[in-house]
Amino acid sequence: MLKSVDCVAGYGLYIDLIQALIDGKETLRSGMMKEVPRVEAAIAAAMSGKCCALVSSGDPGIYAMAGLVFETCKTQNIPLRPPGLPAAGQADATALMVEVVPGIPALCAGAALLGAPLTHDFAVVSLSDLLTPWEVIAERLEAAARADFVMVIYNPKSKKRDWQLDAACKIILAHRDPATPVGIVTGAMRPNQEVRIVPLGELNAEQVGMQTTLFLGSRSSSRYLDFMFTPRGYAGKYDLGQVT
Amino acid sequence: MLKSVDCVAGYGLYIDLIQALIDGKETLRSGMMKEVPRVEAAIAAAMSGKCCALVSSGDPGIYAMAGLVFETCKTQNIPLRPPGLPAAGQADATALMVEVVPGIPALCAGAALLGAPLTHDFAVVSLSDLLTPWEVIAERLEAAARADFVMVIYNPKSKKRDWQLDAACKIILAHRDPATPVGIVTGAMRPNQEVRIVPLGELNAEQVGMQTTLFLGSRSSSRYLDFMFTPRGYAGKYDLGQVT
Repeated sequence: MLKSVDCVAGYGLYIDLIQALIDGKETLRSGMMKEVPRVEAAIAAAMSGKCCALVSSGDPGIYAMAGLVFETCKTQNIPLRPPGLPAAGQADATALMVEVVPGIPALCAGAALLGAPLTHDFAVVSLSDLLTPWEVIAERLEAAARADFVMVIYNPKSKKRDWQLDAACKIILAHRDPATPVGIVTGAMRPNQEVRIVPLGELNAEQVGMQTTLFLGSRSSSRYLDFMFTPRGYAGKYDLGQVT
Repeated sequence: MLKSVDCVAGYGLYIDLIQALIDGKETLRSGMMKEVPRVEAAIAAAMSGKCCALVSSGDPGIYAMAGLVFETCKTQNIPLRPPGLPAAGQADATALMVEVVPGIPALCAGAALLGAPLTHDFAVVSLSDLLTPWEVIAERLEAAARADFVMVIYNPKSKKRDWQLDAACKIILAHRDPATPVGIVTGAMRPNQEVRIVPLGELNAEQVGMQTTLFLGSRSSSRYLDFMFTPRGYAGKYDLGQVT
């Protein structure tokens, strides 16, 4: 997809990471917290007739830029259509074509490094209260912990946010054993990758950074050697006792 | 990865889908509901000294086979280690090496086809009560709906399970507007792919099949033309009014 486009918009670090794939192409770089102007620049480039890729890390639809593209276009009444030829009477053929290319999100990359923590129902919550009131985040943490979801925690900490993880742990510990395994994955699949598993009762903000994703086990999740996993339920129905 | 292995174990249909990549390799095919013997065959092949790939569709760690590998090995005390050279005093160098290779799960593939429904917190629930009591599933649906998670529903129906989706809708409608957009994605990225968006109040079991994944919007999710998306919250903080 990157080979086929005219220009590439994205956070500077992500443009750097893919430089070898986009050499010679026009780039629209922007800094952290500049998501709105970044998306607007990509839309403006596309409306000027260029084919523009807006890159995110992981999957562009999970806590990333895809949502803001649609939100901005809806707010501004910019007509959009999915890829492919529009059928008669359906989408406007002159509308801007938008294609979201899925990727491997941190929740999959991190889970794979830990073993298989997400083989049963799970909930994904970001601890960033920059755009979401803490009360909403706290209610979701409480609901997910009470209903025994495995929990994936994005954005546990940033330079300016240091108390949210401890507050989250307090909420979760009301419903889950302190011995529950928690996977801490930092920089998944990058050179700075770090993977460890700790009991929930020992999790703290010192162990996480801005590139960390956390995987909190459900009541049935289990640790085995250097791995953690969540059983799907086969053991209750079948005998897992003997490889023949 | 498939090129480097000696043999490939998997559900027959998935082996067929990748035949061009594994021509000439030993295959261990098994049918639906034969997950336990499939995983045991893969472990037995690996223990006999072969490098064996166990394939799933989507991501192998999301409602797929990776969990059962770890569960079976733990039950049988088969020592395992992650890829890479074990450090002194850590993993057993003679242990079976297990590497989980992440993939693009249906929740990412389907979300991309719909637009960006997963740009904010979401919960993933399977409606299959073959291995999980319905009471547990119902409690999770209720918790996720109440706490305003976007919800991804796996396994909404099968040949033998036809009432679960209607029961789920009843639970969810107690907490969410019938006008909430629901994305219905069947056969994502396969030749039989179908994508549509309906209001929650009109969702029913006739619209789904065994290859369907559902995306139920949160209270802030929105439809725009042929897309649905969930805002991250930028509009509350920034002006999205004008691409310059």
